[in-house]
Amino acid sequence: MSKNYIRNKKLKLFPDKKENVHQPPGTLIQRITGETAPETKIIVIEYDATSYNEVILDNIDDCTAFKHSKKIKWINVEGIHDTAIVKKIGEIFNIHALSLEDVISPDQRPKFESYDDYDMTFMKMLYEFDSKIYSEQLSIILKDNLVITFQELEGKDAFDPIRQRLKQENLKIRKFGADYLAYSLIDCIVDAYFIILEKIGERLEDLDEELIIKPTPETLQKLYYMKREMIALRKSIWPIRELISSIERSDSNLITKDTQLFFRDVYDHSLRVIETTESYRDLVAGMMDLYMSSMSNKMNEVMKVLTIISTIFIPVTFIAGVYGMNFKFMPELESPYGYAATWAVMLAIMISLLIYFRRKKWL
Amino acid sequence: MSKNYIRNKKLKLFPDKKENVHQPPGTLIQRITGETAPETKIIVIEYDATSYNEVILDNIDDCTAFKHSKKIKWINVEGIHDTAIVKKIGEIFNIHALSLEDVISPDQRPKFESYDDYDMTFMKMLYEFDSKIYSEQLSIILKDNLVITFQELEGKDAFDPIRQRLKQENLKIRKFGADYLAYSLIDCIVDAYFIILEKIGERLEDLDEELIIKPTPETLQKLYYMKREMIALRKSIWPIRELISSIERSDSNLITKDTQLFFRDVYDHSLRVIETTESYRDLVAGMMDLYMSSMSNKMNEVMKVLTIISTIFIPVTFIAGVYGMNFKFMPELESPYGYAATWAVMLAIMISLLIYFRRKKWL
Amino acid sequence: MSKNYIRNKKLKLFPDKKENVHQPPGTLIQRITGETAPETKIIVIEYDATSYNEVILDNIDDCTAFKHSKKIKWINVEGIHDTAIVKKIGEIFNIHALSLEDVISPDQRPKFESYDDYDMTFMKMLYEFDSKIYSEQLSIILKDNLVITFQELEGKDAFDPIRQRLKQENLKIRKFGADYLAYSLIDCIVDAYFIILEKIGERLEDLDEELIIKPTPETLQKLYYMKREMIALRKSIWPIRELISSIERSDSNLITKDTQLFFRDVYDHSLRVIETTESYRDLVAGMMDLYMSSMSNKMNEVMKVLTIISTIFIPVTFIAGVYGMNFKFMPELESPYGYAATWAVMLAIMISLLIYFRRKKWL
Amino acid sequence: MSKNYIRNKKLKLFPDKKENVHQPPGTLIQRITGETAPETKIIVIEYDATSYNEVILDNIDDCTAFKHSKKIKWINVEGIHDTAIVKKIGEIFNIHALSLEDVISPDQRPKFESYDDYDMTFMKMLYEFDSKIYSEQLSIILKDNLVITFQELEGKDAFDPIRQRLKQENLKIRKFGADYLAYSLIDCIVDAYFIILEKIGERLEDLDEELIIKPTPETLQKLYYMKREMIALRKSIWPIRELISSIERSDSNLITKDTQLFFRDVYDHSLRVIETTESYRDLVAGMMDLYMSSMSNKMNEVMKVLTIISTIFIPVTFIAGVYGMNFKFMPELESPYGYAATWAVMLAIMISLLIYFRRKKWL
Amino acid sequence: MSKNYIRNKKLKLFPDKKENVHQPPGTLIQRITGETAPETKIIVIEYDATSYNEVILDNIDDCTAFKHSKKIKWINVEGIHDTAIVKKIGEIFNIHALSLEDVISPDQRPKFESYDDYDMTFMKMLYEFDSKIYSEQLSIILKDNLVITFQELEGKDAFDPIRQRLKQENLKIRKFGADYLAYSLIDCIVDAYFIILEKIGERLEDLDEELIIKPTPETLQKLYYMKREMIALRKSIWPIRELISSIERSDSNLITKDTQLFFRDVYDHSLRVIETTESYRDLVAGMMDLYMSSMSNKMNEVMKVLTIISTIFIPVTFIAGVYGMNFKFMPELESPYGYAATWAVMLAIMISLLIYFRRKKWL
Repeated sequence: MSKNYIRNKKLKLFPDKKENVHQPPGTLIQRITGETAPETKIIVIEYDATSYNEVILDNIDDCTAFKHSKKIKWINVEGIHDTAIVKKIGEIFNIHALSLEDVISPDQRPKFESYDDYDMTFMKMLYEFDSKIYSEQLSIILKDNLVITFQELEGKDAFDPIRQRLKQENLKIRKFGADYLAYSLIDCIVDAYFIILEKIGERLEDLDEELIIKPTPETLQKLYYMKREMIALRKSIWPIRELISSIERSDSNLITKDTQLFFRDVYDHSLRVIETTESYRDLVAGMMDLYMSSMSNKMNEVMKVLTIISTIFIPVTFIAGVYGMNFKFMPELESPYGYAATWAVMLAIMISLLIYFRRKKWL
Repeated sequence: MSKNYIRNKKLKLFPDKKENVHQPPGTLIQRITGETAPETKIIVIEYDATSYNEVILDNIDDCTAFKHSKKIKWINVEGIHDTAIVKKIGEIFNIHALSLEDVISPDQRPKFESYDDYDMTFMKMLYEFDSKIYSEQLSIILKDNLVITFQELEGKDAFDPIRQRLKQENLKIRKFGADYLAYSLIDCIVDAYFIILEKIGERLEDLDEELIIKPTPETLQKLYYMKREMIALRKSIWPIRELISSIERSDSNLITKDTQLFFRDVYDHSLRVIETTESYRDLVAGMMDLYMSSMSNKMNEVMKVLTIISTIFIPVTFIAGVYGMNFKFMPELESPYGYAATWAVMLAIMISLLIYFRRKKWL
Repeated sequence: MSKNYIRNKKLKLFPDKKENVHQPPGTLIQRITGETAPETKIIVIEYDATSYNEVILDNIDDCTAFKHSKKIKWINVEGIHDTAIVKKIGEIFNIHALSLEDVISPDQRPKFESYDDYDMTFMKMLYEFDSKIYSEQLSIILKDNLVITFQELEGKDAFDPIRQRLKQENLKIRKFGADYLAYSLIDCIVDAYFIILEKIGERLEDLDEELIIKPTPETLQKLYYMKREMIALRKSIWPIRELISSIERSDSNLITKDTQLFFRDVYDHSLRVIETTESYRDLVAGMMDLYMSSMSNKMNEVMKVLTIISTIFIPVTFIAGVYGMNFKFMPELESPYGYAATWAVMLAIMISLLIYFRRKKWL
Repeated sequence: MSKNYIRNKKLKLFPDKKENVHQPPGTLIQRITGETAPETKIIVIEYDATSYNEVILDNIDDCTAFKHSKKIKWINVEGIHDTAIVKKIGEIFNIHALSLEDVISPDQRPKFESYDDYDMTFMKMLYEFDSKIYSEQLSIILKDNLVITFQELEGKDAFDPIRQRLKQENLKIRKFGADYLAYSLIDCIVDAYFIILEKIGERLEDLDEELIIKPTPETLQKLYYMKREMIALRKSIWPIRELISSIERSDSNLITKDTQLFFRDVYDHSLRVIETTESYRDLVAGMMDLYMSSMSNKMNEVMKVLTIISTIFIPVTFIAGVYGMNFKFMPELESPYGYAATWAVMLAIMISLLIYFRRKKWL
Repeated sequence: MSKNYIRNKKLKLFPDKKENVHQPPGTLIQRITGETAPETKIIVIEYDATSYNEVILDNIDDCTAFKHSKKIKWINVEGIHDTAIVKKIGEIFNIHALSLEDVISPDQRPKFESYDDYDMTFMKMLYEFDSKIYSEQLSIILKDNLVITFQELEGKDAFDPIRQRLKQENLKIRKFGADYLAYSLIDCIVDAYFIILEKIGERLEDLDEELIIKPTPETLQKLYYMKREMIALRKSIWPIRELISSIERSDSNLITKDTQLFFRDVYDHSLRVIETTESYRDLVAGMMDLYMSSMSNKMNEVMKVLTIISTIFIPVTFIAGVYGMNFKFMPELESPYGYAATWAVMLAIMISLLIYFRRKKWL
């Protein structure tokens, strides 16, 4: 997959061009054409308490084979650009056209929707790459004994630990139903938010230090980028609370009471994620203020130096100027004590000004 | 239609003069008189799953012909200045006087109202023209098998894709009822908001770059205009969420359960529109801060240059002044080393000051 | 009525002295004494679909005559200072002492209260006079077939259009009940808010222009006064939404279903009034920021001029000073090329500094 | 009572040391010991429609005498430091230990609590003394036919008007029950808030004037103190709305329907108090901004003067310096027109700079 | 316990690395390994109205002995790093795996959760050490007749007063159930927040004084740290209100009606804690503003001194420069009054400038 393509997924503040504006709702169009679009990869994991099976599908029609199995199935679709595949899956598993349209538009707002015989969850998977935050949409369809996940791109998910656990026979995940699998995936994504927040936390700590020790205009610019990133992050993270709370409150009979207990836990995590994001916002605002204040302090210091030096020398320079005049009749110039007296006056002025500044606490 | 007239529709922060203040409620008055007011154009589209018919009406009374047809009718009225026409339509289709009054006042707040046998929706259509954002009111009346739309001006809507779809026989829109048509229109308008936000997003990106590379007072003014535009935009966009949510929650029997599912989708879009607007507001605020800070940085730099130059030369200029005095008795002047010694002292002063500034990190 | 008295009614940010603090609740005291208090004027309009009658009462006891009439009565009391009159009306029409106390305290918060057999509404009538905004309290009592209004002052209301309409035989207002009259009055007051907002809007537009073209410290002061006025305005306008919404939601049997439909319309107007006020607040805040920034820009420009001139001339003045020294032994002075060389050096310094400033984009 | 003690009651932003932290809840400890603690004074007023009796109790046990009287009793305890007395009263009238603990902790948050057979209200009485705002806790216990009030200090309440009214035979207060007495006390306290707000309003008006006419750093400090005071005030006033609203909504059978009508009135007052406080906060914020802006304006003016004078004289001083040099070969010096020409050049420079400044609108 | 370890517990703004991200939910992992982790200490207190017994357990399995006792048991576990112990306790007392996972993750958000046969509360214990605020997680499990508390570290709790009370025979705590013990612990923790707020209050008062008397850049930095601390504090304190309110509202049958009354009291305390925190935030913001303003004032003063001195001497220095020129033909130089006249002119200039500055109120 071209690196160029990944870069396009950088956490965006500005929406993508909405090409499917004015398409009839429920129409699937292909968003990324030919050369850059990666291939779609479909992996099916089928398991129950005693068996485990993993297949990479070559042909989307092979999905049908799994349709009537009593085991729990996880169909993971990586790449949503081939709308034919998405449409086909929709047909096989009886998914509403509107849901499919949302699946292929990667600018979906995180949300949970309950349909007659399936539940849909849209979330943003966040990961850091090259110290930039990337965002990728994950759509989770939960049906009876079935979880279908659609990822925007191939191979970027954080689900390997779940796959490992699925392979082990005695773990809870093998004994519980498809709803527990869906919960595990959502939990996994929310946990990944903590990792992102940690990275941001580290960068904030660095900035904090920079700000105290040696603030430069670059510090300000970094703060501004930080703020922009936080605004974008917030758009992905805020709806999560509502999302999980509506899962909890939903009367969907796909989610058992037992699993709902686990969602209560994810709900707390999502609250913590949001609270941390808000703390960071407050912190960045505080840092901006501190930067402005220390700029102001610096300016004050610069001005003081200028003022002290100017104020001390300008009057005495004037006196020297006076006795540099070429008037014929200037009695002081003739006096043998004139020069010494002038020095005395000049020194007196300079010393009194120094005392004055010391009194004003400028020195 | 005169271009002058369009200009008047620019997204306004300040309300129009309310000429019909103190008119009895429910009285229709003509807002725009004679010469500038464009003609009203009425187009009726009548369709069902198998037939499609489009008529431009010359006479408003021809509307009556469609009243008892079982097909679905879309009566699109472009131009609301001829209140006689609006009143006539109201009479034919039995619309409440208050609703009609709202139709002809183009400063209506976006809202949804459910009456006994019809539902009314007021929205703002936004479009960009000559890099200014224009706003036009659209009123949608939904009755049994009937949609009436009132547009402020002729030929500015974004409904052509819907008209195209209506002409094709096999599409959903032909099979569904009038409520689906109403939904399609509303969806179309909300989608147009994304286009506006995109344009604003582009201008923000330009400003962002300008701000980092070379901020000028013009940048500030652009930011200020941006902010004003956002305040005005917000007034049009914020009520949309409430509007659509009240459509969803309404127990109107004009909207079928199926269509309500589609409205849930529009609701999510409206949330995204609002969140994006809010992000932009935050962003503009952040840009303002950055501008102020970089002004402050620049000032600091200017002050430093002034201070360094002044501080280095003022003391030595004073020394030169001293030996420019014309006192008779100045022993230093007689000394052959006086001149060299003076230079040495002056250079020593200048160098120590340079070292001092270097230590203060001003250089 | 003395103009001095009107001035006292200017929209206040600071509450009146509460003289009736520590009076037993429900006690009526006379707020304005003797010389400045205008007389109270009582006008009764009695009408039904077929008849119309208007009387100016000389004696408050004449009110009793209207008590048992089946026609709709509007008793308009202008001036609330003569508490004896207010008390008498209260007795005749059986109004609770607390309601009457509220009627005569002109600092009432806008509110709607439903009593056993009457409803009370308190609102602020706003009008502009001499480019200041004045506020006057209006209390509306709605009973069966009866509306009583108490105005603080004589002859300042905006109800003339209603009076005109009442005189015409075929209008809705003559056919509907007392609740429709109450609605018409409230609608009239809310409409007047739009006029006030328009005036403020115009002043804001003027300020906006002033701010862009030539901001002065007076602009700032005007902005500050604008802000103060908006804070005061907000206190009058904000409670209106709640007020009208509680009229709508009230189960008062004095207001018919038909009239409630009209109140929904007023509710939308009140929302628009509030949103416009909020937009203006945002706008004033934005203008303040712009003012501060343009001050900062100006300062920058001033500093640049100072720095450029000082920095260019201070070093060369020093050089001139050096060769103005009177040392006996100064070889340069003897050289025939000394003067020219000095000029060359000085010009070189000045030109390099100019180039440096050009590079820094200060020129 | 020592004045020193009163001073301690100044409206606090910082909480008292909580000495009874780690005491078992419900334990009464003596907060103020020996020498500074004033004596506790207990006054009992017993009345019904026809009789009135006022006793100052010497011994707390005498309270018991009133326990079974059918008249309405108001036991007013001034001074809460002698916990033995508070405890004794609690025992006689059967008050929960937690309530008593709250009574003697003067840092209670304003609140209303309904117990089985009594209601408790905690409020802050505010009064101004020596242009500082003081706060004192008042606890009101309402039982059947009984009101007990605990004041922190002797003789500082605002209840004299109520006492006066109680003495008069024909007033409502004598005919209504204990709940009306409780209402009267609460109304009295809320009315006192208006007096405080008025004083603050006056000080704000003074500051406002000072700010426009001659702002000094002292103005800023006063604004800051104002802000601090408002933060403290807010903590006392904000909970009042909730408090009174929970009285209104409470299903306590101690408060009759009639009296609840009066509480609706107090509720409106509390809303007005809160809105006024908020307006003042906004106003102080606006004043701070104005102060900062006028500082900035002043600085601009100072800088302009400096820049104009420096810029005009620095170049010409340089020219004078040049012709003060002592080079042997300086042809200009020999010319008879040299001096005049130099003056001409210098004047030309000065005049062009003045024109430049005039053009820039700096003059 | 190593002091280094304590330092790690400093109130954090940035989350710990979440090592157990990607662990299956409900898995217990050991967070702190080998050398730094302190030992876990388990103390069991068993009591009823007549007996009291305190045991330090060596072996976690000894817990089982207490399982079926009818007395009230308080099992206090200090140190949560040995997950084996936590797991064991969970097994013995039948605690859900998710609860145990929360117990050992010290970054839990304060929350209350009600399970089938036990209630869980997570809170932050705050204490000050070396003028830094430390935070430690406390988990409280309330079962029938049983309270289990898990503290992060040994020997840092504030529960000694409770232990003292438990030892005394006649106190309420001995007669009431386990729910009262749980309440006492929670009350104790909330009371400790007041102590922390008091310390912060003292530091704010110091800063306030520093700010008024002699603000330095260090003051600003202290304010900034204060702000950071407050942001972190807020994260610990805010959820407390919700927590206690959900205890109050919970229909857990483990908490008796009597004890719920006590929780109402804690609820008020938590409101006061939150309101105080918010006041402090406002105050710090106000202090920041004041600091910025006084910086601005100082700068103004510095600029004024510079401007006055420069402006007075620059013009007269120019005049002195003029008469220092060496032109052959300068008639003034020959005049016997030239020198005196020049002085007169120079003094006149200086005096007029002084008058000008006095008029401008700069002096």
